[in-house]
Amino acid sequence: MKKIFEYISGIRPVEASLDAAATDHLNNLTKPPGSLGRLEEFAATFIRASGSIPPKLEKKTIFIMAGDHGVASEGVSAFPAEVTPQMVLNFLSGGAAINVLARHAGIQTVVVDMGVNAKFEPRDGLVDHKVAMGTKNIAKEPAMTEQELERAVFAGISLAEKAAKDGRHIIGTGDMGIANTTPSTALYCALLGLSPDEMTGVGTGLDEKGVRHKAEVVKRALALHAPFESPLDAMAKLGGFELAGLTGLVLGAARNNLPVVVDGFISSAAAMVAVKAAPAAAGRIFWSHASKERGHRKALHEMGVRPMLDLDMRLGEGTGAAMAIWIIEGAVKIYNEMATFKKAGVATAL
Amino acid sequence: MKKIFEYISGIRPVEASLDAAATDHLNNLTKPPGSLGRLEEFAATFIRASGSIPPKLEKKTIFIMAGDHGVASEGVSAFPAEVTPQMVLNFLSGGAAINVLARHAGIQTVVVDMGVNAKFEPRDGLVDHKVAMGTKNIAKEPAMTEQELERAVFAGISLAEKAAKDGRHIIGTGDMGIANTTPSTALYCALLGLSPDEMTGVGTGLDEKGVRHKAEVVKRALALHAPFESPLDAMAKLGGFELAGLTGLVLGAARNNLPVVVDGFISSAAAMVAVKAAPAAAGRIFWSHASKERGHRKALHEMGVRPMLDLDMRLGEGTGAAMAIWIIEGAVKIYNEMATFKKAGVATAL
Repeated sequence: MKKIFEYISGIRPVEASLDAAATDHLNNLTKPPGSLGRLEEFAATFIRASGSIPPKLEKKTIFIMAGDHGVASEGVSAFPAEVTPQMVLNFLSGGAAINVLARHAGIQTVVVDMGVNAKFEPRDGLVDHKVAMGTKNIAKEPAMTEQELERAVFAGISLAEKAAKDGRHIIGTGDMGIANTTPSTALYCALLGLSPDEMTGVGTGLDEKGVRHKAEVVKRALALHAPFESPLDAMAKLGGFELAGLTGLVLGAARNNLPVVVDGFISSAAAMVAVKAAPAAAGRIFWSHASKERGHRKALHEMGVRPMLDLDMRLGEGTGAAMAIWIIEGAVKIYNEMATFKKAGVATAL
Repeated sequence: MKKIFEYISGIRPVEASLDAAATDHLNNLTKPPGSLGRLEEFAATFIRASGSIPPKLEKKTIFIMAGDHGVASEGVSAFPAEVTPQMVLNFLSGGAAINVLARHAGIQTVVVDMGVNAKFEPRDGLVDHKVAMGTKNIAKEPAMTEQELERAVFAGISLAEKAAKDGRHIIGTGDMGIANTTPSTALYCALLGLSPDEMTGVGTGLDEKGVRHKAEVVKRALALHAPFESPLDAMAKLGGFELAGLTGLVLGAARNNLPVVVDGFISSAAAMVAVKAAPAAAGRIFWSHASKERGHRKALHEMGVRPMLDLDMRLGEGTGAAMAIWIIEGAVKIYNEMATFKKAGVATAL
């Protein structure tokens, strides 16, 4: 853990000194001040997060982190565990929802094997950060060791560091891992003090009985592992390799002034761990959407953040992040491309 | 009016017969059924509205209808009336918010002079349907004559007819007209039975006193002109040339199976008149966003529709429609481009 805490200590608060200039410019564009609502907020947040005016947002990447979960053996998912590696291949072939939406928004996708229970041949677009062939069953033992946690978190950090070095302007989070709503739910309950009964949802499509069973599994895991020494300790005991990788991604983005767009239920749990461990990271995060997965809205509310979109999506993969990145890019274009009142010869308010 | 009623009688209900095939296809794509939430709904709605499978959505146009308002002389806007023609020129130069967002989404924009109080030289991208140099002051007399209403509505119809003939796949509505939240508010109150006190908002940025005064003007207009023989009669007495043009645009789209995306507070008032006059039109409409303008959310709720986005925008011009069209295009791409479980070799639910 010590290495992670050292890394975190290098994360600096966002550049609030640019706020006045950003607001001033936005108020001089040919529209009533504030009339573009959250688009203006997103442009200002992007400037603050990236620390530069004028903002630049062209190169966009979504990292789809994949991992398997020992807890899948408890029957907590409507889909079989072999779907995780199958979907990894689907991402690489371009046939998944995230591929379609990322293409639509002009976003590069990178698939990361954080701990899938299958071996992949080396392929373009697939990064190998496999920590193990899946986590242990959290209902019976810790998901991973401290060493595994560190490896997973630093895998995410290294991807963010490389993205920043490569001149990417924004990154998004995505996930794939059959059963991963279970560790995510456990993390929300552990770190926000919420109850498994109100936080456990259908995931990929459980029936009512399945949801009740899943809530019992979450309760068992919490009873077994609580109390937690730190958010990262909770991640090690309850989390997943892709979740820990996403936490690292957020931490790495924050340390590099790289705005990061967090997807839905899984990604938010990972980002929550990052923010609890490093509060200064919060200013670089966009929360893309409210998932239809039960408990997500409640969790976001507890964290004090307002999601950008509410489209009843609950797929993960980064699909919500892809839509949100396009909207943030639009907000940045508003900032950079709109005419001012003076330049357009338009009269201002009476 | 008779000519309009004749045109309306040719609007047919949407093609519900395609629903089963659309749902079946969506459920076979590599994601848990329904997990893309409203994106799946938008794809199905687009198919139903356009009447064709597979759906095609490439050519997109937003019509920005502009007009001036006699009621501006009552001091109901924070901006002077000369801003209407100034913004028309800004649209034509590409410096307005709608230009930026339309470019971002790959949408063609067409500016329509429905009744701006200024003369324009002929220019590319500007269509002349000027009915008059602005409406009359609705606080003192009807906004327009029946003949003017007919001209304005058929201007919108002709634009939609031409868009359909030109092979456009979706159109969006946009508006420009200083003071036009006042006639729009009056229309909501007249046709939905809502009160001016709860429906009147800041528009381009009135203070509290200004909002109270504006509500009084709305009350005066309603007291003077009520009762109304029909939704179109309310449009003639309370509306505006750009509003009536937008009503025609929606009617023309509906008659041509052309999906139409309605922008915010102004556009929704115009679309409401279209739907009240021709209920079968409803199935071709996407309601893009909940405006921050007070009363809009209430009005949409009364109409029983759920907006796609909620980004605190209150600018008009078609800015909400532009964002929504991009999302609908994404939904159609999901339908057309995602792999099926079978093709991708991915296991289905247990």
